[in-house]
Parts: sequence; C-alpha cells; structure tokens
Amino acid sequence: MDTTSTASAASAPHKPGDAYPTTARTVPTRGRDRARYDRELVHAVLDAEFVCHLGFVRDGAPVVLPTLYARDGERLYLHGSTGSRPLRAAQTEPLPVCVTVTLVDGLVLARSAFHHSVNYRSVVVQGAARRVTDRAELDRAFDLLVDHVVPGRSADCRPADAREAAATAVLALDLTEVSAKVRSGGPNDDEADLALPHWSGVVPLRRDAGTPEPAPDCSAPLPRYLAAVTR
Amino acid sequence: MDTTSTASAASAPHKPGDAYPTTARTVPTRGRDRARYDRELVHAVLDAEFVCHLGFVRDGAPVVLPTLYARDGERLYLHGSTGSRPLRAAQTEPLPVCVTVTLVDGLVLARSAFHHSVNYRSVVVQGAARRVTDRAELDRAFDLLVDHVVPGRSADCRPADAREAAATAVLALDLTEVSAKVRSGGPNDDEADLALPHWSGVVPLRRDAGTPEPAPDCSAPLPRYLAAVTR
Repeated sequence: MDTTSTASAASAPHKPGDAYPTTARTVPTRGRDRARYDRELVHAVLDAEFVCHLGFVRDGAPVVLPTLYARDGERLYLHGSTGSRPLRAAQTEPLPVCVTVTLVDGLVLARSAFHHSVNYRSVVVQGAARRVTDRAELDRAFDLLVDHVVPGRSADCRPADAREAAATAVLALDLTEVSAKVRSGGPNDDEADLALPHWSGVVPLRRDAGTPEPAPDCSAPLPRYLAAVTR
Repeated sequence: MDTTSTASAASAPHKPGDAYPTTARTVPTRGRDRARYDRELVHAVLDAEFVCHLGFVRDGAPVVLPTLYARDGERLYLHGSTGSRPLRAAQTEPLPVCVTVTLVDGLVLARSAFHHSVNYRSVVVQGAARRVTDRAELDRAFDLLVDHVVPGRSADCRPADAREAAATAVLALDLTEVSAKVRSGGPNDDEADLALPHWSGVVPLRRDAGTPEPAPDCSAPLPRYLAAVTR
C-alpha cells in the first residue's frame, strides 16, 4: 500500500510559536512529506476525538491502552482509575508515555493494490506524564474530560465528591514533543495503470451519532447540547 | 468517570479452545469484570476495524503508531513501509509489540460526572512480531490487507509487482497473548443520584461511509462491493 504519497494540504510559512519544534524522534524516517507540526492542525485533531491510545513500557514490553483524554491549551489530561498499572506507575515519578490520536477520514482505492491507502489525520505526543494530585486541578480535569466527550455536559451533572475524586486518577502530559501526520486527497495511481478498468477514488468515512437512548429510569427531557454531538 | 461497572454481556461456558489462555499480563489490575478472552468476540472486534495502534519500544521509550492490519485466522498482518523504524527493527529479530484495536460504540451519560463512561470493545494483542519475507506469504498478506479494508477489492486491482513487494514491509503477529475488554449498556447511576434532574442514557456512535468519490480520471462504474462498505 501507498506509504509515500504527498499530503495535499499546503503549509503556509509559520509565525514563531505556531509550530512545535521538531526533535530527533518526531521526524519520521519515512513519510516525511506527510509530517506536520503546526499547532492549529494538532489542536484540531486532538479536539475532534476523545479516545487516544496511551502507550507505556511495562517490564520492558510495550503496552497500548485506549484512554479518554481532553486538551487544556498545551496540555492533555488522560483519564484512568487509581488501580490501573500506568496510573500507579506514575504515582511516584513521571511516566514516559506516547499518546496517539487518529481520525480515519476515508478509504483510498487505487488501480494497483500498492497504492491503496487510507486518508487520516493523526497526532503523536511523546513525553513524561505526571499524576495530577492537586484537587483543584483534578476538578478542572474532570470538567474538561466530561466536556470533551459531550460539550456542555459538565454543567449538567453532579460533580465528583471527595470519595469519587480519590478513586479517579488523571495524568497530565504537556504538548512539547508533538507531531502530526496527514494523508488526504485521491489515489496516486501510476501513469501506466490509468488505463486499467478498476474503479479508483475515495470512500469518505466519518463517525455519526445515533438517536440518544434515555436510561429506563430517566424522565428528563433530552438536553440541547446533545443535538450537537455529531463528530 | 466510571471504570468499574460491569459489562452487560454474559459469558457462556467455553469449550476448550474457545478462549485465549490468560497470562499475567492479559489480566488487568482494574476492570477485571470487563475483561474477556473468547475467540469469537476477539475475532469480531478485529474484523470490524482495519486501523490498529501498534506499540513498540524505541530507545527505551514507548512509540504508538496507527497501522493497517488484517486477520488471517489466528494471525495478524500489519502493514508498513520498509524504511519505517519498527519494520527495520523487526528485520533482524522478532520485535516485541502491543497491537490494540478499539471500537467506540457509544457515549454513556450518567447523572454524576464520575459515572460517565464510553461503550467500547477493544482487543489487546501482545507478542513478538516477525517480518514476513516469503514472497507467497507476502502476496497473501497484501490480498488480506486490501480485502480487510474493502472486502472483494483484491480481485479488482492490479497485484503488487516485484518492485512494489520489495518496497512494502509486513509484520506477522500470532494471536497467542490476547485479551478483550467490553463496556456496554446504560449508565450505572448511584441510587442516591436517581432523583437528580439530569438526562441519563446512551448516545450510540458508529462509523458511516459516505458517497464514494471517483478519481477525476476514473470512468469505471462503481463496483458492487463498495455498496457493502458500511461498518
């Protein structure tokens, strides 16, 4: 499959501060033409999804777990339970992690098997995550996490009490070592393949929200902010 | 958020071989009641998605990259380019990896912030991935990868030639150390919160395919198998 084609989005010259500085590990060995570092794109990808894949090392081996997150400016908050392994590991010292968020935008069908691809936008954040212990920061993170999944919801539910706050662990990870990758546009068929009879093009994909299903014991009307939950 | 509630799906007693054996690292420290090991569920999750998150360790730090995959019985094939770091690392000896696949099925809104959750099905595969070098196995993996994204497509495109096969790297990972996690059903509100005025329930989510967009230079009619691409 196609791993070398160019992303279609053009990069305008950046003002200082508009882009994350590159490091040895944020520049890919392949697909460099797809790598992006502009903050606006990174923020847009992070704000369009709410499940990340959190990677860490346990006993020398990689572990990747789906995890809820929210963005607070140049910081991510990651949600876990106090008993889970990565959260326990981060209790004593910052935990080296890799957080990856991926939006799948479409299937790219080319005339050749080789040039088949997927349109996507992904962000990779590397760094050391610290456990949030301050109660005020924890409360802020709770609100951000709830509102990141359903904007407006934190103001319409009971906030965490002391027992619940103690049972919920949150990691904070600053957006310092960050890269994005984007593949967009149509297939990049080889000139020699253009006469082949196979269909070629893109099948767009997106996540849709269905009709909300109230709990059996719920008599409250559907809140307005749920109408907006279509990502 | 809620990390301890019970998955609603019941587990029937298994015939020997119907479940993956558990190991120290496939039994979670938290959320054990959500952990599942039955092959049928694992296969269903793996077959419903085509982008996994591939974790590996580089210079002692975790790296997580979105990666295309396909299942072949009790084996996964992972797609990459020959120049990418994990693929190069796996050239000489098997590479310890963690492959995670996550389907997000719904948002769970409870009366309390704490019991907010997400309905999901995820599979975590741990093991050592080997680089596929045999040309026949490589060709089979190419077909599986293309058909996993669009079933039926491998028979309707030009297969990889020798140059393209040499430029594409595939990792094979056997399904031996495997676990799944499932959260389904409605919110688990505390008894004391039931009288609160907040809406409570589930917003179902799914990925939809839009209208296929032919390439500008494509005059072939839309193939029948594309009508089925709605996951």
